[in-house]
Amino acid sequence: MKLWEKDTVVNKAIEDFTIGKDRELDVELAPFDILGTMAHITMLEKVGLLTAADLQQLLPELNSLYKGAINGNFVIEEGIEDVHSQVELMLTRKLGDVGKKVHSGRSRNDQVLLDLKLYSRHRIYELSHDVQQLFAELQRKSEAHKDDLMPGYTHLQVAMPSSFGLWFGAYAESLVDDMYMLNAAWRIVNQNPLGAAAGYGSSFPLDRNLTTRLLGFDDMSYNVVYAQMGRGKTERAVAMALASIAGTIGKLAMDACLYMSQNFAFIGLPDELTTGSSIMPHKKNPDVFELIRARCNKIQALPNQIGMITGNLPSGYFRDLQIIKEVFIPAFDELKSCLELTAFAVKNMKVNMDLLKNPLYKYAFSVEEVNRRVLEGIPFREAYKQVGREIEAGKFEVPESIHHSHAGSIGNLCNNEIKSKMDAVVSVFSFDKMNEAIAKIIT
Amino acid sequence: MKLWEKDTVVNKAIEDFTIGKDRELDVELAPFDILGTMAHITMLEKVGLLTAADLQQLLPELNSLYKGAINGNFVIEEGIEDVHSQVELMLTRKLGDVGKKVHSGRSRNDQVLLDLKLYSRHRIYELSHDVQQLFAELQRKSEAHKDDLMPGYTHLQVAMPSSFGLWFGAYAESLVDDMYMLNAAWRIVNQNPLGAAAGYGSSFPLDRNLTTRLLGFDDMSYNVVYAQMGRGKTERAVAMALASIAGTIGKLAMDACLYMSQNFAFIGLPDELTTGSSIMPHKKNPDVFELIRARCNKIQALPNQIGMITGNLPSGYFRDLQIIKEVFIPAFDELKSCLELTAFAVKNMKVNMDLLKNPLYKYAFSVEEVNRRVLEGIPFREAYKQVGREIEAGKFEVPESIHHSHAGSIGNLCNNEIKSKMDAVVSVFSFDKMNEAIAKIIT
Amino acid sequence: MKLWEKDTVVNKAIEDFTIGKDRELDVELAPFDILGTMAHITMLEKVGLLTAADLQQLLPELNSLYKGAINGNFVIEEGIEDVHSQVELMLTRKLGDVGKKVHSGRSRNDQVLLDLKLYSRHRIYELSHDVQQLFAELQRKSEAHKDDLMPGYTHLQVAMPSSFGLWFGAYAESLVDDMYMLNAAWRIVNQNPLGAAAGYGSSFPLDRNLTTRLLGFDDMSYNVVYAQMGRGKTERAVAMALASIAGTIGKLAMDACLYMSQNFAFIGLPDELTTGSSIMPHKKNPDVFELIRARCNKIQALPNQIGMITGNLPSGYFRDLQIIKEVFIPAFDELKSCLELTAFAVKNMKVNMDLLKNPLYKYAFSVEEVNRRVLEGIPFREAYKQVGREIEAGKFEVPESIHHSHAGSIGNLCNNEIKSKMDAVVSVFSFDKMNEAIAKIIT
Amino acid sequence: MKLWEKDTVVNKAIEDFTIGKDRELDVELAPFDILGTMAHITMLEKVGLLTAADLQQLLPELNSLYKGAINGNFVIEEGIEDVHSQVELMLTRKLGDVGKKVHSGRSRNDQVLLDLKLYSRHRIYELSHDVQQLFAELQRKSEAHKDDLMPGYTHLQVAMPSSFGLWFGAYAESLVDDMYMLNAAWRIVNQNPLGAAAGYGSSFPLDRNLTTRLLGFDDMSYNVVYAQMGRGKTERAVAMALASIAGTIGKLAMDACLYMSQNFAFIGLPDELTTGSSIMPHKKNPDVFELIRARCNKIQALPNQIGMITGNLPSGYFRDLQIIKEVFIPAFDELKSCLELTAFAVKNMKVNMDLLKNPLYKYAFSVEEVNRRVLEGIPFREAYKQVGREIEAGKFEVPESIHHSHAGSIGNLCNNEIKSKMDAVVSVFSFDKMNEAIAKIIT
Repeated sequence: MKLWEKDTVVNKAIEDFTIGKDRELDVELAPFDILGTMAHITMLEKVGLLTAADLQQLLPELNSLYKGAINGNFVIEEGIEDVHSQVELMLTRKLGDVGKKVHSGRSRNDQVLLDLKLYSRHRIYELSHDVQQLFAELQRKSEAHKDDLMPGYTHLQVAMPSSFGLWFGAYAESLVDDMYMLNAAWRIVNQNPLGAAAGYGSSFPLDRNLTTRLLGFDDMSYNVVYAQMGRGKTERAVAMALASIAGTIGKLAMDACLYMSQNFAFIGLPDELTTGSSIMPHKKNPDVFELIRARCNKIQALPNQIGMITGNLPSGYFRDLQIIKEVFIPAFDELKSCLELTAFAVKNMKVNMDLLKNPLYKYAFSVEEVNRRVLEGIPFREAYKQVGREIEAGKFEVPESIHHSHAGSIGNLCNNEIKSKMDAVVSVFSFDKMNEAIAKIIT
Repeated sequence: MKLWEKDTVVNKAIEDFTIGKDRELDVELAPFDILGTMAHITMLEKVGLLTAADLQQLLPELNSLYKGAINGNFVIEEGIEDVHSQVELMLTRKLGDVGKKVHSGRSRNDQVLLDLKLYSRHRIYELSHDVQQLFAELQRKSEAHKDDLMPGYTHLQVAMPSSFGLWFGAYAESLVDDMYMLNAAWRIVNQNPLGAAAGYGSSFPLDRNLTTRLLGFDDMSYNVVYAQMGRGKTERAVAMALASIAGTIGKLAMDACLYMSQNFAFIGLPDELTTGSSIMPHKKNPDVFELIRARCNKIQALPNQIGMITGNLPSGYFRDLQIIKEVFIPAFDELKSCLELTAFAVKNMKVNMDLLKNPLYKYAFSVEEVNRRVLEGIPFREAYKQVGREIEAGKFEVPESIHHSHAGSIGNLCNNEIKSKMDAVVSVFSFDKMNEAIAKIIT
Repeated sequence: MKLWEKDTVVNKAIEDFTIGKDRELDVELAPFDILGTMAHITMLEKVGLLTAADLQQLLPELNSLYKGAINGNFVIEEGIEDVHSQVELMLTRKLGDVGKKVHSGRSRNDQVLLDLKLYSRHRIYELSHDVQQLFAELQRKSEAHKDDLMPGYTHLQVAMPSSFGLWFGAYAESLVDDMYMLNAAWRIVNQNPLGAAAGYGSSFPLDRNLTTRLLGFDDMSYNVVYAQMGRGKTERAVAMALASIAGTIGKLAMDACLYMSQNFAFIGLPDELTTGSSIMPHKKNPDVFELIRARCNKIQALPNQIGMITGNLPSGYFRDLQIIKEVFIPAFDELKSCLELTAFAVKNMKVNMDLLKNPLYKYAFSVEEVNRRVLEGIPFREAYKQVGREIEAGKFEVPESIHHSHAGSIGNLCNNEIKSKMDAVVSVFSFDKMNEAIAKIIT
Repeated sequence: MKLWEKDTVVNKAIEDFTIGKDRELDVELAPFDILGTMAHITMLEKVGLLTAADLQQLLPELNSLYKGAINGNFVIEEGIEDVHSQVELMLTRKLGDVGKKVHSGRSRNDQVLLDLKLYSRHRIYELSHDVQQLFAELQRKSEAHKDDLMPGYTHLQVAMPSSFGLWFGAYAESLVDDMYMLNAAWRIVNQNPLGAAAGYGSSFPLDRNLTTRLLGFDDMSYNVVYAQMGRGKTERAVAMALASIAGTIGKLAMDACLYMSQNFAFIGLPDELTTGSSIMPHKKNPDVFELIRARCNKIQALPNQIGMITGNLPSGYFRDLQIIKEVFIPAFDELKSCLELTAFAVKNMKVNMDLLKNPLYKYAFSVEEVNRRVLEGIPFREAYKQVGREIEAGKFEVPESIHHSHAGSIGNLCNNEIKSKMDAVVSVFSFDKMNEAIAKIIT
């Protein structure tokens, strides 16, 4: 069954090609498609395009489909093209012709637009939770190891004293900046496209403010041509935010892989988090972090992938947009698993103590010594040259202790201030509004 | 002269390779480097690392260098590596040894971090102005042509009636979403990294809150390891925002090129905006829009380019980051020129009237007819089949008029509501705070 | 069961994350893994690391596993990590401890390297066949329509007369250039990595020339560190070749979508190749070409995706490489379906005749007219100005006929010469050598 | 002066935008534009479109312009749009109206196509030389250090013994595979597009075989529509080859940066190749390798950048293609400098001896020990478990020596065989044919 079939038999191979992975991917969209339909028909009834009796028949049935869908019991049947057709089919089977009325005033174009926005909104909500979990773990670790020094590198050359407190804390602060990107994606996503129909609106007197309110959107994609144009653009904006988070985790994973090398030996992971080798019995490999790194790099390539697909397309709907779902929808699960495993691995990471007692890192203290002399009144350039000559002559001595006190330095991590930044950006998302609206639809 | 030269003669070829384009690119950073230095030494004096007398000597000289720089009179001399060295050199030439003191408590790493943040902040401020200009032009055009219908396409097939009001207005609304991305970039950029030194802070008692306030930053990149890690990450975030804006303009340019084709003939441009052919005397080519499209595609490739350069680098400074400047700094001018020329071209665009009277677009009205029958009580699927059969039989008649009234549709463009969204996002940027702070530094 | 398990219970979630999609993807590699194992143990027996009796037991069993695998009957069981473990398990189940001996002198690193090379080699062989099919179809169509003129565009502006003969023929010639890239990929792929073990070779006296010969490789990746380094690099090289082919088809699809628009109406497709709309009864949309275009764009993003994953990794094996399989292996089927459907669509494409009689295309003849005057002795720049003025004055007349005779022009398509180029590049691939070698292994 | 100006004053800002960087970039193309013009007019005379007298006037003047151009004395004057106009202008200034005749039967479209092919061909020729230089240096170093062991890593974990012989040699062999890609690019580039005019050929009886022969091309881009379609496609193919070489060098640079870290200390560079720090007097940073790595990553992003610009453009010339020159032309110099500096750095690299005596690398010998036991008759899995247990119990002893003898292993580097592969691929390029043809044109 295809809605637009017009009595023409369509070649099977072409059908397979055109449907592609829609049947499996659309299952992910099912709860959101049903929610959207409930809001849509509630509005249709208000504007007189559906009777109150029709609505009363349809809503409970959709409610029950919704519950099935969130419990994983929604299947797109063989021969059914997409989630929209499947929902309509199920309604019609149960309720007869009234089931067909849910499509009035909509096109599959704005249906899938809406589904993707509701879906992305939900996944951003989830991700923001996972980001906060990892953030909290990193900050806990930063506080726990605030006095454990490690060498700091520039150019991978030993440079200056750093600390595990700084190292863990840095990645926490990085996540704050990622949340600014995620919030931009949220604002783009959280606007109602329903009513755009095929991208040119409808001659029906749709009440788009009502569906906006019912679905808990912050705003509306007003212009119907723009609402349609938002397809692809929205996914890319979200992908940019995912890439930003992935950039943070991927870098942490790179550090972790390096620091687990015997040549650094800064950190260790429990056996459950390492894997062995089929030919080398002594290996404890950081495969988990390598796979996190690679997945994060894959996610970082996503905005470009979407950009290639949508690049140079004129305005108006094209079927090309369907292919974006193949790379967009799985990215959420991929990033989620990376966030969760990183949090788990950070929590279980063992930190090696007293690293800076290793003579290898002696010269990490050279700047301290230069600065000490400056504070004693020697001009910087002169102190720099003195210490440089002592190093070349093998006469450099490590200072007894270090005192960094300014904001964000070893001795003053400012984790609370960073936490305040995180709290501030989280508070800008309108998660409660979304959840309350959905709770009202589902009775 | 290189600050770190330590009496070793460095091979000239290597020097050329390592300096690369820094001498020309850093000129762009000069005013910001000077501003940063003024804030830095003001702070140094407050914390006792500089005497009041030193400060009084240095500030007026830096003020004068700043004025030179914004008037285009700043030159990085042959043999000088970068802007930081040049500023210090000029101070030392004029004031003697006191000029060397401006480097205390800083590294070139956090100097360039700061320069890039101040520079990006300024360019975002400029871009936001250009975006608003184009937005206003698009909205004016949308209102002026709100009653001029054009065919709407899906799959490049004639689909439904659209209007120039919708078309221009759609791109205006697209810019609103781009501004959400630009605002995220702004929030990431608008945090003070100064004090991070080489990425591990300093043993000097720097007052980072003071420099944050002096430079009008909204916040601080607290953790010094993170402040350094923000290099590359910040540029990519900004590049993502530029790519978002470029995506909007590039798509508009694609539409414009298509609509100027004789096969569409929807719009025209005055002769100044078209170019001819060296062998075809009849041609009026939309080269301007093609070049806008291509430049915008180049900008859309920028985040990936930065991602390739920074990908899989561990934490800590690497010289790799220098190369990002080559692709990052020119992108602002490129996008600026695209925004300006698009605004100019939109303003001068001639719209062809009465397009829908062309029989080619007859079937654009089929949905109207289906919906009309639905409003008369015929079920949608049935009405759809009826009209489909009439079309196949060549009996379809165009309805006399169309009435689209819902929000965002042909008859109700909601340009005011879209303007309100734009105003709201613009108001979130803290441009005034930035400008006031800089005005205070420059006396 | 994991080969390296060493009595440690590995957390289930981590196992799922680390195995990823390997169990499903590795099924594709199974026939090649088995082939490689047969060659490997034949060599082991020759160098005395396996008895003749062991070999005689193992070979028939592997032969039978191979037949199962190419008939789609190879399953990687729940709890088994990858194809290598599964093959070893099946051998051990059937033959006991002798099954374990197949792993001597190998690591899973060089096993998967080998599998990917054999797999890619086979898929390149298949693709080259599909490319030739499409090439032939395009050339047939070019010959069939060599006299059917169409407007040629520059800047999407009507420019000069072209022909369907030229248009179809151009895409055929484009495929020739793509085959140069595919041949480069073939040469990189067709080198034996077996013996590299974990990337540092083996203390066993392996005879790598023998396995090279047995598997029909043209050459060997000698240096074992390089053989390992080829992972990722090889996939990217192949992806570049796929991207090249995809570029050709994607562009053809873009043209086709444009030419099917009512505004061009140059070509038509039979109903089986178009789809309708759920709300617009008159639509016949070129969804097939849109999906081909989008899939081809996805494939064109593949080299960059691989580049992001492998970028900045030092030498030596990393688990990151596993993720490449997720995007690399499916690309072959994706491109294959695009090639097949494009060939089918080209074959069934209807070409509209007499396009140039449409007055819209009148000025396409202006260059002809300029050139005619030049041949009469008027200097080019002067003739150009004359015709330009006649066009502006509305006095331009279409010449009666056009005569293009030079190589590659409308009147002289040179399809035979282009076919010769294709034959020449195809002949450089050593497909027969590959097939004969495999036929010898499988008895 | 613009050739197509038709008495219309074009706005200055638009002119600047449309000309872009053409005036500076086109200088690079000048010698090739002049060569192409010489071949073109020689052909025009043969087919009767130019008199012998005209030809005799024009050729010497072009010859002299060519010599100026290769000596760096070609300037595109203020107000002149591109190299084509400048050459014509210079001819006309010197020779009068006959200078205008060189444009007959050409368009600027096929002129720039030709220029880019001749230019790319020349740069590929140069690059192939630089690649061979680096290859030779790497092989020399590999032989010199064939007995110097180093630890081999997998997952950045110490894995097995490797050697500097293997490490240097691996990168040499990697360059061989890159040359396959470069050769594919060469084959695509080395085909004559001249005669395609604006992409639809010409009504003049051009002899394209003659210009193909005169310019030393291996073949012709026959189909004129395809010849035009090759623009952008050709640049991307070349960019893919550059990216392949860049991938090899970038990875070597990553290794070098890692191995220069105090934590590895495998290699050293003389002072001329390191740089210091403005605040840390002890630093010797591998900036050169970091900049090589970053430049190479920038180059690796190039194919995607070109792909974004050309993606989804229909067939026919678009001005978009001009922007590709901005990123394509500089890439050759960038890669050339990376190749040269890498060769220089490899030559001057100091290798640290006796690395494997460091107890840190003890377990690198575990596989040797497993294999030794296997050769004594213990089944592999059993030997693996034994050694694993000894390691865990701290009882593992390092074997006295290692013997790797198979092809490509530590004891048998096969550098000669790898050199043979390099020689074979180099011999496939038709450099001599190119050089001889050009020598004939320039008298």
